[in-house]
Parts: sequence; structure tokens; C-alpha cells
Amino acid sequence: MTTQQIVLAARPVGTPTKDTFRFETTEVPALHAGQVLLQGLYYSVDPYMRGRMSDAKSYAPPFEVGKPFYGGVVAKVLSSKSDLFKEGDVVLGMLSWQQQIVANEKELRKVDTTIAPASYYLGILGMPGLTAYFGLMHIGKPKAGETVVVSGAAGAVGVLVGQMAKIHGCRVVGIAGTDEKVALIKKEFAFDEAINYKTTPNMRLAIKEACPNGVDIYFDNVGGPISDAVISNINFHARIPLCGQISLYNNTEMASGPRLQPMLLTRSVLMQGFIVFNFQDKYPEGFKHLAQWVKEGKLKTTETIIDGFDQLPTALLGLFKGHNTGKMLVKA
Amino acid sequence: MTTQQIVLAARPVGTPTKDTFRFETTEVPALHAGQVLLQGLYYSVDPYMRGRMSDAKSYAPPFEVGKPFYGGVVAKVLSSKSDLFKEGDVVLGMLSWQQQIVANEKELRKVDTTIAPASYYLGILGMPGLTAYFGLMHIGKPKAGETVVVSGAAGAVGVLVGQMAKIHGCRVVGIAGTDEKVALIKKEFAFDEAINYKTTPNMRLAIKEACPNGVDIYFDNVGGPISDAVISNINFHARIPLCGQISLYNNTEMASGPRLQPMLLTRSVLMQGFIVFNFQDKYPEGFKHLAQWVKEGKLKTTETIIDGFDQLPTALLGLFKGHNTGKMLVKA
Repeated sequence: MTTQQIVLAARPVGTPTKDTFRFETTEVPALHAGQVLLQGLYYSVDPYMRGRMSDAKSYAPPFEVGKPFYGGVVAKVLSSKSDLFKEGDVVLGMLSWQQQIVANEKELRKVDTTIAPASYYLGILGMPGLTAYFGLMHIGKPKAGETVVVSGAAGAVGVLVGQMAKIHGCRVVGIAGTDEKVALIKKEFAFDEAINYKTTPNMRLAIKEACPNGVDIYFDNVGGPISDAVISNINFHARIPLCGQISLYNNTEMASGPRLQPMLLTRSVLMQGFIVFNFQDKYPEGFKHLAQWVKEGKLKTTETIIDGFDQLPTALLGLFKGHNTGKMLVKA
Repeated sequence: MTTQQIVLAARPVGTPTKDTFRFETTEVPALHAGQVLLQGLYYSVDPYMRGRMSDAKSYAPPFEVGKPFYGGVVAKVLSSKSDLFKEGDVVLGMLSWQQQIVANEKELRKVDTTIAPASYYLGILGMPGLTAYFGLMHIGKPKAGETVVVSGAAGAVGVLVGQMAKIHGCRVVGIAGTDEKVALIKKEFAFDEAINYKTTPNMRLAIKEACPNGVDIYFDNVGGPISDAVISNINFHARIPLCGQISLYNNTEMASGPRLQPMLLTRSVLMQGFIVFNFQDKYPEGFKHLAQWVKEGKLKTTETIIDGFDQLPTALLGLFKGHNTGKMLVKA
């Protein structure tokens, strides 16, 4: 038996292109004890994957050239030589971009599709949800009445951060890149204000007007000049969870910008880079809160679902052009 | 009765000059109840004073044009209408740059010159000591075996940070601006390595060689390209207490430099701006440790003492040219 897979054809220089990816047909090996054969249902595409295409020092080992991409995948068990999973189970794992996947039982956990749709386990109840939760709650530490600014506000993480900050009584201002996204996060996700950075000539002033009391928490998903504009309005004792820098990921050289440390110093600001794995021992706490808020209707999601396994490269590249609203997924 | 005072003549643009200061003769008012008349003994000059000469948003209100400079002063009581202080007592306070000063008892605390020389209360047992302590211990949180890099390493704070990091079992690398300073911190203050940034062509490489295991704590007193070089060698989960940015204080425009956030993000680094006043409720803890280490001979200081009240402007300006080794003071 064979299956399709998508491998890293070559490490991209600058923005990845279709040539970064190669489709291959590969053998599906016979199952050993403790293994299952899976049919991929939903494949997650995430901004952090750009980092893994390079071999710079980072928190995760890079993808290998000639080997499959991998990421969060929700899949259905087709056949099982594991005592933990049976045919028909829906599971989650960090898995190769293959249509049919042989996985070891230790890499997988079962997901409960009676609580929420399967795709949610790659978004609001998965890594993006936990990322939003730990970044905001454990680094940002919101207090009622504070002002929270979120960049990439209509993205998978941003849209959750804004809602969580509202749950905690904050004023929430989102930054996004289209009028549709701006309208959506205000109407559907109750952001107090939203700014389209692409059509706003003076972001520094726009942030100032949207945040009359200054910025207490800046949840940064994008970096670059948008972040400069927010940080110029930062308050004393503010917190900046650094979650993403998507505007800079495709740069071939280190970007330049204003030196922010004097401002961080004189205003006693905390800036903390993080990835969700830093909070691994607290996942149960995070998941409990996320599931509770979803159940109570306080935390909602939006998804951009692209049909077809062969659309995975297009979907991933689309992230860097802002083609997604909320969590971007590919449905096989 | 009259006395000499030094006032802010005009807010400096860029580097302050002699014209930033004006000497005046002023009346010494009669004492009210609760007041004392003081004779200044030691006047502290500190890099943070540059910030107070401007009216940009900062942690402290700016000096006022036409009003005296003020800062940490150790003084002797000449006469007293306070029940708390008597003639001959040596006291510490944030006081005006006047030769004779009328102060309220609430602004002062007595210093014990049997424990340490009076000047120490402006340095190793004063604000610089507490700054080093809280920045290193409460933000840096050193663990034995870690590598700590200190910029401004021969300055009032830096020389203490290095020694405290040694007390906690760290490898300590200092950065300073003359060969004499480099030799001093290695010989007298037991730094493992020291680098003269003025004669080192490739600081990034020099830091890499001095820190074979990378940098776990970067205690930053200077900012700018020196900090860029250190941060390019920063480890996962490193901490960067932002204590000073003296290389940038005299800039008239916001300086530019590499955008560091992508590195802080992918390596989960914490950067925390702070001033010592943030830890005000923990001063007794800090002072206890400082006094203990001084008593045990584990923590030593060096001072640059300039003679003459009229030398205060020269001393303060000298800080920005690195004229001090250790704590810079003026002895009246």
C-alpha cells in the first residue's frame, strides 16, 4: 500500500514558495505492536512552521530536507495493533504530512468529539488555545480595567487572547489586516476597538486614541513596525508576551528598527518570549479553563478550512499573507 | 546665611555640557520644628540623572529648570530642630545639590559609620548595591553553573553584580571600556573573563569565546551594539535585567538597531526593565544580604571620589565618558 506525502524539497531563502514543497508517493509500512494506521482528517498549518524550515537555532529541531513536514493532525484510526486505540477512534498527534500515517500509540491522544468538533483540538482546544491561555494568563496576568492590545488579532491565537482578556474585565484593542477582520473581531468577538494596520497611516496615534489609558498588556503575534507603534504607548509595569513575529519570519537578514530597551527600562516593562511547551506541566489547567469557557459560550472560535490534502502548501503559505481568519486548517 | 547650590540651567539636547548647570548663591532659611541643617559630605552622581534632565515620560519626575539638582547625599547634622537627629549625626537622603541643606526629618535616615565608611551608603550599601541585588537576584535568578555577562562591569552597579554572581557559583564575564578596568575586575573582583569593548573588533565573537556555554543572564547597564553582541549569544530561558542604557541616554533621536524580539521569542528569553524603587518593600532583605557579604569580605567596592562641591557637574558628565571606576562620588 502507498500514500501521498509532502516533504521539504529545499530550505527556503526568504518567503517559501511552492518549490519549498514536494509531493511524493511512499510505502505505508506494515503495523508493529503498539502502532496504528491513521487516516488524516485535519492538518494544522501554523506560523511557527516557518522557523522549522530554517536550520537556525530555535526551540524545535528543524524539518529535514527530503523528509515529510509534520505538525498537529487530527486523524481517524483505520486499523490498530495498539491496546489504547481501536478502529474509528479520533486521535491527535504531531504527525507527518501523509494522507495515511503509521503512528506509535505514545505519540497520540484520543479526542472527544462529543464535547467539540474534531477540528477544535487543533485550535481553540489545542495548541493555539493553550498558547493564548498561558501567554495571556501566566505572562500578561490581566487585571480588570487594564488595556490589552493584541496584534494578529484575527488569527488563531489572537482572537482567543482578545476574548480571554474580555472575560477578565479588560479593555481590548485588536490589530488586523483587513476591514473584514476588523469588523469580525468587533462584532463576533466583542473587541472594544480594532484597527486595520494596512489602511491606518499613523499607527502610533491610532493606538493612542484607541487606548486612552495606555497599554498594560501587549500580546505580540507579529513584531515589526506594528509592535513599535504599540510599545510607544506602553504603560509603566506593562507586560509583553512575545508569542509570534510573523511579519519578520521571511526576512533574509536581521531586521532593523528602533531600540526599544530604553523605553522598556524607564517604564519597568516585562517582555517575555515563550512557546506553549514551556507550560507543558500546566496543560491540564489550561485545557480545563478553555473547555469551561467554550462550554459557557464565553470563548468562541472561527476557522478557515481549506479542502484537500494537496492544498497544504497553499494554506501554509497563505498564513504569511493573512489569508486566514482564525485557525487555518486543511481538511483532507 | 547663604550657601552655594547647583541648578538646572536648561534642559540639554544631546550630551549635557557645563552650560546645563548654573551655580547660585541662595539663602539658608531658618529651621522649623522637625527640620535639620546639614553639611553635605558626599554627593552621588548617577547615570539615571540624565533622564531627569529631560521631560520625557519616565519613572521619576524631571528636574525643574532653575531648581537645584538633587540626588543621594550623605551629610552631617550641623544643627537640629528634630527629635530624631542630633548635631554630629551622619544621615542619608535624596537632597538638593547645596553645600548646606535644610531638610525635613522624614526625608532622612541615619547611617552607621561604625559598620562602613559614610560613602558606602551611596554605593555598595545604598542604591547601587540594592539595584545590583534586586536586578540580579529577583530578575536574573542566578543558578550555580550558569554564565552571567555584565556590561558596564566596572561601574557602581556592574562591579557588584559580578561579585554577587560569583557568590552564587556562576561564571562571570564583564564588559568594560579600558584595559585598566578590565584588569581590575579580573584581579580585584574575581570576574572569570573581561572584555574591553573599545579595543575588541568583533564583540559577538569575543562574547562567544568568553561564554562557551552561552549566556544565561545578561545584566545590561549600557544598551546599544554591546547588548546586541551579548544577546546574539543568549541561551534558551535566559534572563535580561535591563538596568541601564547609558550608551543611548544622550541620543537626540531614538536609536536604531537589530530587531531582537525574534531571538527573544524563539529562545524564550525574559527581558525586564526595572528600577530599584520597584523593590522598595524588599529593601530590608536586600540590605541584610549586602551588609552580610560586605562583612564577610565577599563583596567589595571601588570608588572614584572627586574632591570639591564645584566638581559635581564635571563628575556627572564624566559618567557618560566612563571616567569612573566603581561608584562615582563628589566629596564636598
